[in-house]
Amino acid sequence: MRILILGGDGYLGWPQSLYLSSKGHHVTIFDNLSRRHFDLERGFNSLIPIQTLHERVAAWKEVSGQQIQISIGDTMDYAALATVFRDTQPEAVVHLAEQRSAPYSMIDRKHAVFTQTNNVIGTLNVLYAIKEFAPDCHLVKLGTMGEYGTPNIDIEEGFIEIQHKGRSDIMPYPKQPSSFYHLSKVHDSHNIMFCCKIWGLRATDLNQGVVYGVETTETRQDARLATRFDYDQIYGTALNRFCAQAAAGYPLSVYGKGQQIRGYINLMDTVRCIELAITAPPLEGEYRVFNQFTEQFSLVELAEMVARRSKRFGLEAQIKHLPNPRVEAERHYYNASHTRLIELGLEPHLLNGSVLESLIELAIKQREHINRNLIMPSVDWRITKNEIPPTSP
Amino acid sequence: MRILILGGDGYLGWPQSLYLSSKGHHVTIFDNLSRRHFDLERGFNSLIPIQTLHERVAAWKEVSGQQIQISIGDTMDYAALATVFRDTQPEAVVHLAEQRSAPYSMIDRKHAVFTQTNNVIGTLNVLYAIKEFAPDCHLVKLGTMGEYGTPNIDIEEGFIEIQHKGRSDIMPYPKQPSSFYHLSKVHDSHNIMFCCKIWGLRATDLNQGVVYGVETTETRQDARLATRFDYDQIYGTALNRFCAQAAAGYPLSVYGKGQQIRGYINLMDTVRCIELAITAPPLEGEYRVFNQFTEQFSLVELAEMVARRSKRFGLEAQIKHLPNPRVEAERHYYNASHTRLIELGLEPHLLNGSVLESLIELAIKQREHINRNLIMPSVDWRITKNEIPPTSP
Repeated sequence: MRILILGGDGYLGWPQSLYLSSKGHHVTIFDNLSRRHFDLERGFNSLIPIQTLHERVAAWKEVSGQQIQISIGDTMDYAALATVFRDTQPEAVVHLAEQRSAPYSMIDRKHAVFTQTNNVIGTLNVLYAIKEFAPDCHLVKLGTMGEYGTPNIDIEEGFIEIQHKGRSDIMPYPKQPSSFYHLSKVHDSHNIMFCCKIWGLRATDLNQGVVYGVETTETRQDARLATRFDYDQIYGTALNRFCAQAAAGYPLSVYGKGQQIRGYINLMDTVRCIELAITAPPLEGEYRVFNQFTEQFSLVELAEMVARRSKRFGLEAQIKHLPNPRVEAERHYYNASHTRLIELGLEPHLLNGSVLESLIELAIKQREHINRNLIMPSVDWRITKNEIPPTSP
Repeated sequence: MRILILGGDGYLGWPQSLYLSSKGHHVTIFDNLSRRHFDLERGFNSLIPIQTLHERVAAWKEVSGQQIQISIGDTMDYAALATVFRDTQPEAVVHLAEQRSAPYSMIDRKHAVFTQTNNVIGTLNVLYAIKEFAPDCHLVKLGTMGEYGTPNIDIEEGFIEIQHKGRSDIMPYPKQPSSFYHLSKVHDSHNIMFCCKIWGLRATDLNQGVVYGVETTETRQDARLATRFDYDQIYGTALNRFCAQAAAGYPLSVYGKGQQIRGYINLMDTVRCIELAITAPPLEGEYRVFNQFTEQFSLVELAEMVARRSKRFGLEAQIKHLPNPRVEAERHYYNASHTRLIELGLEPHLLNGSVLESLIELAIKQREHINRNLIMPSVDWRITKNEIPPTSP
């Protein structure tokens, strides 16, 4: 299948590209390299060294014999986007080309405006490009479980049947996102649903949980194929960050009470979920939503698991509760449905001891590169003018 | 009260500014004059001649003795917006500075991108300006009943209690908007609700029905105080358009079956509703939603009312069903709650014979200026590349 991967140079996009290429698909990566630019902007870096996109693709050719095509461009540049759609005639497009950090979107007004413009208008351009150049193409769009917030009822997969005053309807599940980033994904979802309706596009909106892990079958084959390992306050997700903190001998920083429950998924399952969506496309005009996670944990449960496992490496990790820089419920009901990808064939890699140990081990190997200044939160949801200075490493 | 009116030069913004000024409020208009620019872009014009903003304000000073301040600027220009917030220290801001035509947003990709960027990012800038310069200021934001779509259950005012699997929660009412314009308002609503939550802002989101009429107590006092009368396919709303068609001897153009039911409101009630919202502000951190309309009609009912009333002027208006250029249900359940503004004191001006006659009479007076080419729909929801050329008058 001809597959276009928007954002194929990122943390998820790169292993996704490798995985689909390994399955024999013709993969083209379209990426503006913005994730690398954000590192430069903030003085961050992946804990595991990563290669340039060109070096990555060359290494993959060497290892697998497969050629991944590259097109450097921005979804905000419609001419560039239209050209890659016209030239590659994709049968599926995986859209990972969004600014994906909640704290980044909350730094200040400029970062909020950038996030919403880039994500919402970029996606609008993708929708127009599909309609114009590849109307049968299946859009696989990464959303987030954070679109739902933490309602007091069960979270369903995109839609819910509502009984009201003696009548009923199946309606889009109400959204209560909690950052300008999460909001941008909600805006996307509404725009995509509308385009499926008016133009007959096919789309799968994958509301993904927090991804952990840095290895897949493909990335393990050569150090040059590694994907990012972010542990910083802006791009590091909870579990990766805890492992880095444990390895470096810093306390595991839990925001607030730590009873915040979220869905989590292993990177190996993410790449498989997207393949499952691609190989069972929706009907013409169909907009479907899958909740893409495999397990639920509270923050403090995660921290405790990491602390426990760290002992095997002789580490004594402490858990430290910080004032919560986010505005979010710290104790809440949470029960989210996630059966549709299982029905399509997903066999989850659950978060067990060996997964945790391999992550901690990775972090230990890079321990001398861990910079504590990058970890502690400085972006506060309640403050508008909180432009944080780039931290020197 | 110090009131800032964003978009105070528009169809609603101008009579709103006059009304609030007449009540003794200190009114400042912030407007980029874009509505006049859209006329130039498309070769349209208000059927009733309107004055420049400066002439309008001077005439109002002459008539009433009241001074309305003017600041020419764009919500997309944060420096300009911040300056007017800092200098005027508004206690309430009425936000009417959005591109407000559904067909305009559907012309092509550029117009969709313009509409969503201008509306969503412009509103994001307004939210940041409030937080930064006037955190106690009450945001009165114009939304649209079109955010809800046409669900098979009753439409409530912004929120709905959902019972689900033995639990319940009060949640944002699910949105199913039907144009890139309507979508932009949904995006705004989510962004505003979030800012109330994280920053403690106060906001009233007014989901307004289709507005008809062109006169208020204030505009009647001097011809120079008139507001716009749009009858064209892009900016003319249904009732105004039908009256113009009847006056000019053209068939009343009903899209599709004409069983599309919508909420309607008289311009005189709109200006009053906004005053009611301003004078009973929400609490700190409160995001509230009022449905701002007074009656429901189907399109064909409206056309029949106009046809009937036209007879009194010796006109024989025909009703003509056109292929529907929009993608929308043409026969559907519709029952929308609208009690909160009534509870605050709204006494509706309902759509009766004399209102219709005055509108038809106005259109008859300007009959020789009505251009049929401007009326017939050329923007089709199903077609992406349908840039319409400006029509020569």
